[in-house]
Amino acid sequence: MKALIFDLDGTLVDTVYAHTLAWQRVFAAAGLAVPAYVIHSRIGLNGKLFVRSALREIGKRVTEDESAELRRRHGEAYAEILPERTPLPGAVEILRSLRQMQVPHAVATSGKPTSIKESLAALEFEEETAVVDASHVTHGKPNPETFLTAAKKIDIAPEDCLIVGDAIWDVLAAQRAGMLCVAVLTGGNDRMELIQAGAHRVFRDVGELHANLDQFGFDLEDEPEL
Amino acid sequence: MKALIFDLDGTLVDTVYAHTLAWQRVFAAAGLAVPAYVIHSRIGLNGKLFVRSALREIGKRVTEDESAELRRRHGEAYAEILPERTPLPGAVEILRSLRQMQVPHAVATSGKPTSIKESLAALEFEEETAVVDASHVTHGKPNPETFLTAAKKIDIAPEDCLIVGDAIWDVLAAQRAGMLCVAVLTGGNDRMELIQAGAHRVFRDVGELHANLDQFGFDLEDEPEL
Repeated sequence: MKALIFDLDGTLVDTVYAHTLAWQRVFAAAGLAVPAYVIHSRIGLNGKLFVRSALREIGKRVTEDESAELRRRHGEAYAEILPERTPLPGAVEILRSLRQMQVPHAVATSGKPTSIKESLAALEFEEETAVVDASHVTHGKPNPETFLTAAKKIDIAPEDCLIVGDAIWDVLAAQRAGMLCVAVLTGGNDRMELIQAGAHRVFRDVGELHANLDQFGFDLEDEPEL
Repeated sequence: MKALIFDLDGTLVDTVYAHTLAWQRVFAAAGLAVPAYVIHSRIGLNGKLFVRSALREIGKRVTEDESAELRRRHGEAYAEILPERTPLPGAVEILRSLRQMQVPHAVATSGKPTSIKESLAALEFEEETAVVDASHVTHGKPNPETFLTAAKKIDIAPEDCLIVGDAIWDVLAAQRAGMLCVAVLTGGNDRMELIQAGAHRVFRDVGELHANLDQFGFDLEDEPEL
């Protein structure tokens, strides 16, 4: 493996639960009662698909315009519920380490530019780090386009990229992109479902992945070779 | 089986995600950064144990007094985040059905009287329904006292009670009480962990359980016998 491509929400920043509650509020305000656990398990899907699939669960449909409006309101509710973004354990450290060792890496998310900006700042992102968000692709996850665009941006062949994500949608998109995928549990998703979807390894968080990167042929130790 | 004993949060009412975010806010305000997924998986433990176990995860400890203060603030934050309580799919219906068919049942929760009041109202609880909360026991879940007290209250032997819960702590407490336990996924907990802990069946929600109560020897159909 030559590069790492990270999902953002639930993988690097602790935002999944706030996204869940924000969506539930927005749905409720529109008269749509969606249980929180239904929303939680769908976080990370691209926006359109998320709305359709969450509402299908309660037997409801909305028009394209209504869906766009719900997504706009979600951005507001999310910012209100979670004004501050917190990195997940080990996130800042693994990114710093990758930069220092000049290992190519990128972030590939279904999030919109407005809602990820603060998360990237909390992760101490530098300008040059490659980021692919909803604005860069036609089809978000579980379509492979997000990950393939990220690989292209850092100029690494898909088969040399390791995906790190917390959701089923990351695992499915990775496989469709021809990439190996490891999962982390920090998004609160079901371990067995991640494994069933095709995650090759499951780590507690990116901190634990960091300590085990040699499993994938990365050597981040700054030791002189003898 | 002669009776059903239900957990409340995540089983009958959609409150687990709000509890999670409320705890995270209270911890953060005290300078304690606990990832949301760590909190989520511990919801349903009795209050003291919850605080101790969540903070152990980040290598911190608090005094008994500080723990009590955190729990008090959690009550406030929770009420602020979730002013309205929503029943989970099938919850109101299964309780109504049990009342109509005069099947003994109770609610047994780690929650405090103040924080469960609105949830019981949302479930259209009637005065006579047995409720055991944190104020009625010395040791909350995973200690079996909560479930044993509920069984006593409805005057049914523990071995004739079926526990319905969404968390590992319900499953463990049920086994220590000598009761059969089924789990529901509405609290967003990991299916495999529930099974590993000892859940005999896992249903999507109490609505699905309702449709399958004959598996446990309950017959809720109001059909005349021929």
